[in-house]
Amino acid sequence: MTSTTYSIKGMTCGHCVNSVSTELGGLPGVTDVTVDLASGNAVVVSDQPLDPEVVREAVDEAGYELVG
Amino acid sequence: MTSTTYSIKGMTCGHCVNSVSTELGGLPGVTDVTVDLASGNAVVVSDQPLDPEVVREAVDEAGYELVG
Repeated sequence: MTSTTYSIKGMTCGHCVNSVSTELGGLPGVTDVTVDLASGNAVVVSDQPLDPEVVREAVDEAGYELVG
Repeated sequence: MTSTTYSIKGMTCGHCVNSVSTELGGLPGVTDVTVDLASGNAVVVSDQPLDPEVVREAVDEAGYELVG
């Protein structure tokens, strides 16, 4: 089990949080996602460490940008 | 047929625009809704003039505020 915090740019409201949560939550091995609108942080818990590119693509798919 | 422009406060993204459009578009007699995020304006076309309180409640239901 691993927990990683990602910084996401562009979320402006609760709908945005839902979109990101849904995309990240749908990745294989992800068991929990907590997104904070104010900070732009997403804490993702998964069985195994995630491929950063997979996470980046999921955030992009939701319509936002992974920072760093 | 009547067209009225409402000013709405609190929309921050395209998801917000969709929520407002859906709520206003569901009101009886409404045939078209165009919401502009940048200005916060919603142009509502309806068969008959709408009760301002009904419009206010629909905007509130979507999670935003009718200005004025």
